[in-house]
Amino acid sequence: MASQQMNRLELFSDAVFAIAITLLILDIKVPKHEALRPGQTLLRMLLYQWPSFFAFATSFVSILMIWVNHHAIFKLLGRGSHRFVLINGLLLFLVTFVPFPTALVAEYLGHPGEKTAVLLYTGTFVAISSTFYLLWSHASRNPRLLKHPTDHSALSSTQGSYLWGPILYFATFLAGFWQPWLSVALCLGLVLIPQLPQLKKND
Amino acid sequence: MASQQMNRLELFSDAVFAIAITLLILDIKVPKHEALRPGQTLLRMLLYQWPSFFAFATSFVSILMIWVNHHAIFKLLGRGSHRFVLINGLLLFLVTFVPFPTALVAEYLGHPGEKTAVLLYTGTFVAISSTFYLLWSHASRNPRLLKHPTDHSALSSTQGSYLWGPILYFATFLAGFWQPWLSVALCLGLVLIPQLPQLKKND
Amino acid sequence: MASQQMNRLELFSDAVFAIAITLLILDIKVPKHEALRPGQTLLRMLLYQWPSFFAFATSFVSILMIWVNHHAIFKLLGRGSHRFVLINGLLLFLVTFVPFPTALVAEYLGHPGEKTAVLLYTGTFVAISSTFYLLWSHASRNPRLLKHPTDHSALSSTQGSYLWGPILYFATFLAGFWQPWLSVALCLGLVLIPQLPQLKKND
Amino acid sequence: MASQQMNRLELFSDAVFAIAITLLILDIKVPKHEALRPGQTLLRMLLYQWPSFFAFATSFVSILMIWVNHHAIFKLLGRGSHRFVLINGLLLFLVTFVPFPTALVAEYLGHPGEKTAVLLYTGTFVAISSTFYLLWSHASRNPRLLKHPTDHSALSSTQGSYLWGPILYFATFLAGFWQPWLSVALCLGLVLIPQLPQLKKND
Repeated sequence: MASQQMNRLELFSDAVFAIAITLLILDIKVPKHEALRPGQTLLRMLLYQWPSFFAFATSFVSILMIWVNHHAIFKLLGRGSHRFVLINGLLLFLVTFVPFPTALVAEYLGHPGEKTAVLLYTGTFVAISSTFYLLWSHASRNPRLLKHPTDHSALSSTQGSYLWGPILYFATFLAGFWQPWLSVALCLGLVLIPQLPQLKKND
Repeated sequence: MASQQMNRLELFSDAVFAIAITLLILDIKVPKHEALRPGQTLLRMLLYQWPSFFAFATSFVSILMIWVNHHAIFKLLGRGSHRFVLINGLLLFLVTFVPFPTALVAEYLGHPGEKTAVLLYTGTFVAISSTFYLLWSHASRNPRLLKHPTDHSALSSTQGSYLWGPILYFATFLAGFWQPWLSVALCLGLVLIPQLPQLKKND
Repeated sequence: MASQQMNRLELFSDAVFAIAITLLILDIKVPKHEALRPGQTLLRMLLYQWPSFFAFATSFVSILMIWVNHHAIFKLLGRGSHRFVLINGLLLFLVTFVPFPTALVAEYLGHPGEKTAVLLYTGTFVAISSTFYLLWSHASRNPRLLKHPTDHSALSSTQGSYLWGPILYFATFLAGFWQPWLSVALCLGLVLIPQLPQLKKND
Repeated sequence: MASQQMNRLELFSDAVFAIAITLLILDIKVPKHEALRPGQTLLRMLLYQWPSFFAFATSFVSILMIWVNHHAIFKLLGRGSHRFVLINGLLLFLVTFVPFPTALVAEYLGHPGEKTAVLLYTGTFVAISSTFYLLWSHASRNPRLLKHPTDHSALSSTQGSYLWGPILYFATFLAGFWQPWLSVALCLGLVLIPQLPQLKKND
């Protein structure tokens, strides 16, 4: 697969990420105005829906970060192998799946069944981060895929971040057996915390 | 972040804007034909749904204008800092959120809870216009991000429009405490009125 | 607005067309399996839903044709005026609106209220074809917007097709007062019939 | 239609594929938490929904493969005829339709009406693979559409895969009369099995 085809694969992947990230809002349901009982306010009903907002925010920042990482790998590659295309297909499959466990968490957090909902949610991110590691390791073992051979060290130096992903998400997954809402909060933290030091830098 | 990456960030942002603007129509619900009582016409039912059409139109023109302003900033920039990417991510987060308060306004205008719905709606636009000001001020304080250093004066000259945005939207937000529907109408006016003189010009 | 900006405006418009055309399928509702009464078959229920399929097909081919015509205008233009951008925004507004009257026709054809549904549907296409005429006439009156001045005659020669659009759609609209389903069929015919002779040609 | 227009047609088609593939997840319904009866677990309810996951996965990989094949044809073409554009339009029409039979299969597999649902599903893929054959044969009979005349043999050599598509999907369609779920499994197998040997190769 030559450079032009890689470009098209990247554009297609970008479109899938953009659509998946924008569809998430459809999971926050608008309470019917007839359902507002006397003495109850809309504000209270919205606050009661906090798991929807929490799941929306967590999935949004997670998919945005997947997009950033996806781009970081693609910008080093000049061509793709057939296996690379298949792994990328698996990644897109998992990303388009994200709105479903997000909606499950929104519906079940605080209700019976929340453990199952959260385990499927964090499990999806374990699968996504593992697929990313596959994508990275396939690229790093096939230097002929690189745009510039000198990028090989750049790629190798990022091994840490791609290897830690599945490990940290798996720990998050395990936390779900104990405290479901904490597990979702850890998913959000995994994405946001590494950004904090960057806010001070000016590049 | 080099020029090519900025291009990809702009394309991704554009896709998110395009999807968010097109999803808005899903908030206008089609009344079931079985719900039509004898003597009631579909026209009357549709007229009764005016808040849906009003909220749809207001959100559409607002997101379109966000897209135009977003482009106006990006076309001056040759590269982006990490912080710029994060502010842009916050902007996309708020834009994908817009369909939810839009649906709230469509459901609650004219019913108990309309104040909360409208305050969340206009509050979202206060947040969006403030994020725009952040984006603008970050770009204008970092001339090395500019494509051409001479664009710095072009960027500075637009400070007014980016600074007035949050102020006017905040006034609109305050109006919502007093008269909710007027507050939404002001949101629409804030976008449409500045376009009127442009219609006479021929460029 | 220079050539690069026109490119971005065209890409944004294309994305809106692509999303609107793909969202149409969401209007064909899947009957719940519990709703299947004994002795009733799914096939019969689907056949009963023919207005949904009819409205889906009509809106699909109409939006596809709008996309083709939109491209035909844009490929002649090297730059856009502010007014051109506003007319294009109005066109996008109307195109994103199409799924709503489509869903109305799907719900009301064959039921009380079908006349209103169909008039709103065909009325939307009257508005779209009129906006197209505006777009065309603005471009043809401003030769400085053209990529090549010699394209002016190419643009003028297409006046017929852009002028006939609103006229034929208005006749279709009027037919809706008399026979609603025929009016939708005419909308479909207006797009498909001009394609038939092209099928014989080999270019 | 010149090269630049073909590019735009390909981008538009890509966007439609990307949206259709991402909308599929909306067909997996989240069971309401109130519907969970005492003693029933969410896990059991999700397992009960297996036809939704099965149909989602099958449609996802099928559309992804349609995208790959679509690209394989387009990369050989330098220009398109009017008829080519129409056949491509028919292909897009069928692809945007896929979410509907997918939702039907998700709702009816294991219930009365499953045969009709599956026949419509596999019938859609018979139509898509036949349209692909039309696209291929039109391109191969019009060498002037090719980017490089030497690509003609490359195009001819792929006849097998485009001819076998409709034949195998038709066999799958016939299997649906006998065993509906097997028919959907065959659809999935038709896409996945040819990928298996590719996993061993390293290109």
